[in-house]
Amino acid sequence: MALAISAASGAGRDAAAVERLQTLLASEMAQVNALILERLQSPVTLIPQLASHLIASGGKRLRPLVTLAGARLCGYAGHHHVALAAAVEFIHTATLLHDDVIDESAMRRGQATANTVWGNQASVLVGDFLFSRAFQLMVETNSADALRILSNASAVIAEGEVLQLTTAHDLETDERGYMSVIAGKTAALFAAAAEMGAVIAGRPNAEQEALRRYGTDLGIAYQLVDDVLDYTGRRSSLGKNTGDDFREGKITLPVVLAHRRGNEEERGFWRRTLSEGIQGEGDFKLARRLLERHGALADTIEEARRYAAKAEAILAQFPANEYRAALIELAAFAPDRLF
Amino acid sequence: MALAISAASGAGRDAAAVERLQTLLASEMAQVNALILERLQSPVTLIPQLASHLIASGGKRLRPLVTLAGARLCGYAGHHHVALAAAVEFIHTATLLHDDVIDESAMRRGQATANTVWGNQASVLVGDFLFSRAFQLMVETNSADALRILSNASAVIAEGEVLQLTTAHDLETDERGYMSVIAGKTAALFAAAAEMGAVIAGRPNAEQEALRRYGTDLGIAYQLVDDVLDYTGRRSSLGKNTGDDFREGKITLPVVLAHRRGNEEERGFWRRTLSEGIQGEGDFKLARRLLERHGALADTIEEARRYAAKAEAILAQFPANEYRAALIELAAFAPDRLF
Repeated sequence: MALAISAASGAGRDAAAVERLQTLLASEMAQVNALILERLQSPVTLIPQLASHLIASGGKRLRPLVTLAGARLCGYAGHHHVALAAAVEFIHTATLLHDDVIDESAMRRGQATANTVWGNQASVLVGDFLFSRAFQLMVETNSADALRILSNASAVIAEGEVLQLTTAHDLETDERGYMSVIAGKTAALFAAAAEMGAVIAGRPNAEQEALRRYGTDLGIAYQLVDDVLDYTGRRSSLGKNTGDDFREGKITLPVVLAHRRGNEEERGFWRRTLSEGIQGEGDFKLARRLLERHGALADTIEEARRYAAKAEAILAQFPANEYRAALIELAAFAPDRLF
Repeated sequence: MALAISAASGAGRDAAAVERLQTLLASEMAQVNALILERLQSPVTLIPQLASHLIASGGKRLRPLVTLAGARLCGYAGHHHVALAAAVEFIHTATLLHDDVIDESAMRRGQATANTVWGNQASVLVGDFLFSRAFQLMVETNSADALRILSNASAVIAEGEVLQLTTAHDLETDERGYMSVIAGKTAALFAAAAEMGAVIAGRPNAEQEALRRYGTDLGIAYQLVDDVLDYTGRRSSLGKNTGDDFREGKITLPVVLAHRRGNEEERGFWRRTLSEGIQGEGDFKLARRLLERHGALADTIEEARRYAAKAEAILAQFPANEYRAALIELAAFAPDRLF
């Protein structure tokens, strides 16, 4: 499915890197997908209906792929990484469902969001169900460390999302505030996904920590690219509406930079559109022009490349094998989603 | 705090039973409360602000009391029951926060609900945070069984809530459908709260199962009483708005009974007000009259007494001590909340 998406959007090396991971881990990912389908069943039929709407709608399964690859990179030969990978995807899907309620966004992964079809109430509750299922899966693996890591990550994700809520519309937000938001809402789950690979393989702390840092940096690079795409992407490649962040008054890095570098009139524009939420025809186009004028998009991409390079470098300490190569490629080409 | 509430509402033996448990477990409940306050802290200040709004607003802490009493009934002398009790209260609070989003109810525990003050988005996310905190607490107790029980309970709670959503406005719902809803949304957490007491004490399966059944039956009795109070209660004693269920088109047992026993005209009334959601002045009063005319409230109370008696009887197999006496009283007087 990632292939179909990449073909449609004309994306290049980034899609190839994801595809390589998917090929390498094809049989385990098939088990993950089977487990996901099995565990989203419930006698309450609205649950699998609503959950499969999102979970089967063409996500790349990036986070479970990272868990599987991390485990295999660490020489893991058991089968618990499959359950952990499914748990990670359940947590991710739960946050998407709760995000849809939150953002009132009308589009996710190129389809109407679950909440516009079934209402906010069902989205919240099915998210809770998936969250619970994630913990049920983890319990079955008998890994106290994995449980600790994923429950910590869940708390940090929620903190990041609440922080995003409180920084929205607030043009005083600086790089540091922005980084705190994305460290929580995006990087924490990538970090947990990667770290659990080393944990389930019983590897020493140094390797657990290395994979954790890999996941963190990959997640940050990924989110930086997302924030640029929200201004430059086409709907077909992004799978959600371009301009969502702008409409919702989210203060992402491109905005932080352009606001600071702008003149008084430009700052007035950002104040009206983002702080006060008063937006009219042509405002989004103007926002994009201002971001480009001040090099805010280019600098955000540069920052993404810096984090991607850090992620790559961390893996040098692992033995050279096809899993390491694929994870390095995944990080290296993450910024290529832009082109 | 329970005392203040009971004095205000003129409640009787039920409040005395809760108070007896609170007195018996005063020092441990103080630890639970301290742990709750400690763990709802976060650098993201909106989280403790919003969470303490609900968690410090005079709840009776019934579920954590059941966990503590269950553990002590089973002779537990350690300290992990405190963390489990706090985890149970966190899960309960998380479901209330998500319920507030869901029900669009304007009042909970006599205060404006969190979502009318801070918005739906924050309520969802802070609920997620508390849910994560619950699992972090459980992980610290190193009890795989407790984790299994609480993650299972969370999934069943979500299923019950979704089922409630799909049965709302549906007058075809029968006793069985209604019981499935409340078994999930209310009884599952009482059951887990009670069972974990025996589990953490390392007691045999038979005792775990007995406490589980006690919690289930207590929870069902409790919910049946709640559903009657929604039609008969005064706002001050209920702590939420009388008539919420009616306004939201919830098909509770009193409605199931009155609808079935009513004539064609009465069924038309239920169809208009609950299925079609068309309600006007005087409709709630008429609904209450119809429930009384057909003995629907009395029969629901009778059912609550039946479950309360079952809960009491189960405890006969435990040694007679003050914890058993208090838990028996709690069940026996649960239906007295009505008067």
